[in-house]
Amino acid sequence: MQNIECPGFKAAGVAAGLKKDGRKDLGIIFSEVPANVAGVFTKNSVQAACISLCKKRIESGKAQAIIANSGNANCCTGKNGMRDTMLMSEYISQGLDLSEEMVFVASTGVIGVPLPVDLIRSAMPDLIGSLSGYGFADFAEAVMTTDTFRKMSSRQGIHDGKKFTVIGVAKGSGMIHPDMATMLCFVCSDIDAPPEMLQTMLASSVHDSFNRITVDGDTSTNDMVLLMANGLSGVRLNSNSDMDVFQKELDVVLKDLARQIVKDGEGATKLVEIEVKGAQSDSDARLVADTVANSNLVKTAFFGQDANWGRIIAAAGRAGAKLDQDKIDIYFDGIEIVSCGVFSGNDAEREATKILEKPEFIITIDLNIGQGKASVLTCDFSVEYVKINADYRT
Amino acid sequence: MQNIECPGFKAAGVAAGLKKDGRKDLGIIFSEVPANVAGVFTKNSVQAACISLCKKRIESGKAQAIIANSGNANCCTGKNGMRDTMLMSEYISQGLDLSEEMVFVASTGVIGVPLPVDLIRSAMPDLIGSLSGYGFADFAEAVMTTDTFRKMSSRQGIHDGKKFTVIGVAKGSGMIHPDMATMLCFVCSDIDAPPEMLQTMLASSVHDSFNRITVDGDTSTNDMVLLMANGLSGVRLNSNSDMDVFQKELDVVLKDLARQIVKDGEGATKLVEIEVKGAQSDSDARLVADTVANSNLVKTAFFGQDANWGRIIAAAGRAGAKLDQDKIDIYFDGIEIVSCGVFSGNDAEREATKILEKPEFIITIDLNIGQGKASVLTCDFSVEYVKINADYRT
Repeated sequence: MQNIECPGFKAAGVAAGLKKDGRKDLGIIFSEVPANVAGVFTKNSVQAACISLCKKRIESGKAQAIIANSGNANCCTGKNGMRDTMLMSEYISQGLDLSEEMVFVASTGVIGVPLPVDLIRSAMPDLIGSLSGYGFADFAEAVMTTDTFRKMSSRQGIHDGKKFTVIGVAKGSGMIHPDMATMLCFVCSDIDAPPEMLQTMLASSVHDSFNRITVDGDTSTNDMVLLMANGLSGVRLNSNSDMDVFQKELDVVLKDLARQIVKDGEGATKLVEIEVKGAQSDSDARLVADTVANSNLVKTAFFGQDANWGRIIAAAGRAGAKLDQDKIDIYFDGIEIVSCGVFSGNDAEREATKILEKPEFIITIDLNIGQGKASVLTCDFSVEYVKINADYRT
Repeated sequence: MQNIECPGFKAAGVAAGLKKDGRKDLGIIFSEVPANVAGVFTKNSVQAACISLCKKRIESGKAQAIIANSGNANCCTGKNGMRDTMLMSEYISQGLDLSEEMVFVASTGVIGVPLPVDLIRSAMPDLIGSLSGYGFADFAEAVMTTDTFRKMSSRQGIHDGKKFTVIGVAKGSGMIHPDMATMLCFVCSDIDAPPEMLQTMLASSVHDSFNRITVDGDTSTNDMVLLMANGLSGVRLNSNSDMDVFQKELDVVLKDLARQIVKDGEGATKLVEIEVKGAQSDSDARLVADTVANSNLVKTAFFGQDANWGRIIAAAGRAGAKLDQDKIDIYFDGIEIVSCGVFSGNDAEREATKILEKPEFIITIDLNIGQGKASVLTCDFSVEYVKINADYRT
């Protein structure tokens, strides 16, 4: 995973000094030829300047470079915020001799602190000089904030006898929630497809990956997922019937990255899938899965390795979905701990408690009143989460 | 506060052995004459047997006794759950020679464990023998779970030259949330008012007290607020215009209890009021106040005494209310830390950080786009909260 690459793309990551501890904090992804681009952005009403810029530029459907920094979100920084975002774009367009419209900007870190653009300008020669086909690992490091490991994933597919590649890099650890997590994800491919088709495929993939994870229910002002496709593989997706070829690989990459983000949830010691079935509708199932996956009481019980199904059923009950408490079954990795709304007994609890000692397990809630189903990935809620977030700025 | 009393009411609390550590766990409130009754119950779809029983009995508008236990929620206990709730009612109706219909039952504690009714039966002589006008403090102790102090409040009013009393007892600490918190509250008064009027006044008071607090966003299967009025004061509320007389005192008692509950939030070290104004509507203001008050990132920052207004504005942004980020002002106890969406500077931050060292403070968010306002009480989110809830059953 250290040396993933994608034809025609180069990347780099350096330490510009935005992070005080000398870690990498400035990255770039560059496509040697103009790429088609698609994007998904935060739904938070408070948005950083870079989100406004990218939303505007993505209308052209074209991109050739992404510059991203960590250590500073450049959000709620007033008029200077947009000026500094424009400056980041300008440095890249000058350094790489691109039209400014082809440059996208992403920032992540603390909100409300002026961006030290001078540090970014000074780091430009080093950043551009380090561009390499194998630079994605450095880029992945440069976008980390509270992440404890860099997040990368790649796949290759074959269509009409020709090989194509998808690689993705993401950051995210705290403030993770469906629709508006504090996360960034950049996907590059040498597939050839029009921007509208890329947008459809990206939206579908995000729906089944980043919108299916939660760490703490909190969400951010700077999130984006960008997909650049430069067409160099010669694999062209002409019609909707070709879409599956690429969608399949894109789904794998995004789901893998989403899973890595939850696994690296701030302070997390366990990765838990909340699977709901037998609901009256998929949306009802989703309500229950989301409510259970976000319950602090459920998540602290996971941390305590306590098979506290009472908290799970109480969270399900407040989700707002139709249910009959006398029909609910609950399983821990297939061990039935609640049957028809009633505790299955001490033997079941002993087995369930053993399952909670594992680093990964599945909680299944069967409402037994319909065919609706949904699944969400979450993590436990530890003492460390509180420590990380009480101390983050200091 | 130790010796509050209300004419015609007696209460008691004893240790029946439901809690393993010998603390009080069984309580009773008794009105010497039949009282009118009003109640508000959890909206959780998963409900304990006692909730079903009380909802049915309250239709008559009459009550004379409430028996409440802690240490066991008697929820998700199947058919035996209702049998055991009925037995609790039966013991009281026999012991006090009341019609069963006049007895209300409340339970709080762990979900899904069969209720040891034998322990309750054995404790009956002691419980009934301890009934006293000054027994509310013992009762308040008997309904505590993770509470660190008992919660009581009382007020007296005068109407037409006659004195009346309102006393309230509550429990609640974790799993606190508007509409469906893990809380119980019992209010007694010697006012004389029809059940429908009591219901109107109680609903209004709950809306402005228990529905304005949050500890962790989680909610329960057993919550109820009951108000018994025995009329012994001779103060009769005849028409709607009389309601204010009583409403005023009831509001004070319930708000006081609600505040005590947040102050005793599991692991809480700070009591924080989130005040939102300038919203397009009161409901928009409420959305923002609730989202900020429930944000784990905001609450951990309070714990860390970090004036992290970025998390506050990010939470406001995802609340779903209409807002313009360039108009938002944020104050910590009147110190403006954000002006028109931008940081007010290091001096303001230094002052705001000092405010965060206080045990109680107010965060004001002015959206500056309308007249809507709302306020919610919350607490900080500490390492201790996670420890309490990871270890609660073990």
